[in-house]
Amino acid sequence: MSAAIDLTDRSAFQHWYREKLRFSDTDLIGHVNNVAFAALIEGGRINFTRSGPFADLPRDVLVVMRRIELDYRAELHWPADIDIGSRLLRIGGSSVTIGNGVFHNDRCAATSVTVLVMIDRQTRKPVQIPEAMRRTMAGYIAPGPE
Amino acid sequence: MSAAIDLTDRSAFQHWYREKLRFSDTDLIGHVNNVAFAALIEGGRINFTRSGPFADLPRDVLVVMRRIELDYRAELHWPADIDIGSRLLRIGGSSVTIGNGVFHNDRCAATSVTVLVMIDRQTRKPVQIPEAMRRTMAGYIAPGPE
Amino acid sequence: MSAAIDLTDRSAFQHWYREKLRFSDTDLIGHVNNVAFAALIEGGRINFTRSGPFADLPRDVLVVMRRIELDYRAELHWPADIDIGSRLLRIGGSSVTIGNGVFHNDRCAATSVTVLVMIDRQTRKPVQIPEAMRRTMAGYIAPGPE
Amino acid sequence: MSAAIDLTDRSAFQHWYREKLRFSDTDLIGHVNNVAFAALIEGGRINFTRSGPFADLPRDVLVVMRRIELDYRAELHWPADIDIGSRLLRIGGSSVTIGNGVFHNDRCAATSVTVLVMIDRQTRKPVQIPEAMRRTMAGYIAPGPE
Repeated sequence: MSAAIDLTDRSAFQHWYREKLRFSDTDLIGHVNNVAFAALIEGGRINFTRSGPFADLPRDVLVVMRRIELDYRAELHWPADIDIGSRLLRIGGSSVTIGNGVFHNDRCAATSVTVLVMIDRQTRKPVQIPEAMRRTMAGYIAPGPE
Repeated sequence: MSAAIDLTDRSAFQHWYREKLRFSDTDLIGHVNNVAFAALIEGGRINFTRSGPFADLPRDVLVVMRRIELDYRAELHWPADIDIGSRLLRIGGSSVTIGNGVFHNDRCAATSVTVLVMIDRQTRKPVQIPEAMRRTMAGYIAPGPE
Repeated sequence: MSAAIDLTDRSAFQHWYREKLRFSDTDLIGHVNNVAFAALIEGGRINFTRSGPFADLPRDVLVVMRRIELDYRAELHWPADIDIGSRLLRIGGSSVTIGNGVFHNDRCAATSVTVLVMIDRQTRKPVQIPEAMRRTMAGYIAPGPE
Repeated sequence: MSAAIDLTDRSAFQHWYREKLRFSDTDLIGHVNNVAFAALIEGGRINFTRSGPFADLPRDVLVVMRRIELDYRAELHWPADIDIGSRLLRIGGSSVTIGNGVFHNDRCAATSVTVLVMIDRQTRKPVQIPEAMRRTMAGYIAPGPE
């Protein structure tokens, strides 16, 4: 299903997070440094997951980052307000995949696909996603709400 | 005059800039790292100077940072929207002093006093502030507008 | 060929770059924030490309980042000296693929595959990698030196 | 006493910490951003305090930053290895003042004076510096070792 979703299109997203670029995000090339893109995406992603899909996260479960694929599509220049779109792409056994788009107005500057894994706070080993959480998240992946 | 201004009081400022804290601004102590305060202040300060006092900056003049005094007054915790207040404190021969306040709602988390110096783009030596610029800036330091 | 290379193994790399973790690289979880990994990898990668493969880069050609795939494999904790290994994985028509490994002693904390594209400084369009540069780079991809 | 110490002179320091500049430390002006100076100084300062003066820090006492005065004296350009010198300037009732110098080879790029305060981990109120710690620190401020 995620193959059919075009993350460069604003209409792919219902959840949005807006951040200002910082002067210190720029580098000597004169544009926003690639590392700052990762910080922008992290902000949008955490705001999204906290606001809904991970609302039922048990206290003994931690969410850790496993992998990110980040495609740079256009330069960003300071100053600008940046919109980060987030959506749930896939729910696995113990992992969740999030899609993000980074936009300056209607121009897509980057897209990313992030894999998060649920681990036990004590053993630090992956755990199955609890059923209540899985049901909550399913509402975010259905064609309707997302 | 600057001695009489209380930068911990929101009413000291007319120019405001709002930024979101980033997750990556936090450190292992659990609060916002002191380095991130400097980035927040820089954002507010540049937005202020570009929007008015430095509007008449000649192309052969650069503004560089000479000194900052930064007082940490309270911890900041992610997530939060932060307001950075800026005001002009003093106009010297080749330097300008800016006062900043960092606020979360009505709580002042930090204040700072920054000295900027005008230098010639070629010689990199300090230059006298041009008269047109001095007149523009004077409007920002008078009791009226500020 | 890159499929056969295990980037989690230090012996996959001949070029190394050592960086200290910074206190401000940590986040409220208590470990090094995922964004800091991108900064560490960037440091190792640029040190590698400048020191050899891109030595013949013409002045009218710029190298820009097109994509990164970053796998997080273990947490990093401050303070520590981190070794970033770099190697050339593939030379395309106008792109180059670099493999990186992030190590704390013998433990691999992350691996990444980055695609860089050569563009014309004026047109900002991709250009074919110049022959001299291609020959230089080929020496880095051969089994011998790498 | 601190008035007599020239922090722009390498001979003022016995404790040194070396860090590499990062590409992401640069900004669009082409030099190292002023915020990165604060991160470099933090690295040197913590390495110094942990390695000696604060070795006797009781578990119920936290050290927090109260103020920094940072003088920018020269631009830094990437890439470079930077040396951060640290020394103890003053021991107060509940505070400690640290002096730092940031050097690229023999050129001083910045100096700073930082005030740290000891607070109780529970009440978050300032506490008197414990006697054992005061004796340890005194050894670092005497003309001999420092």
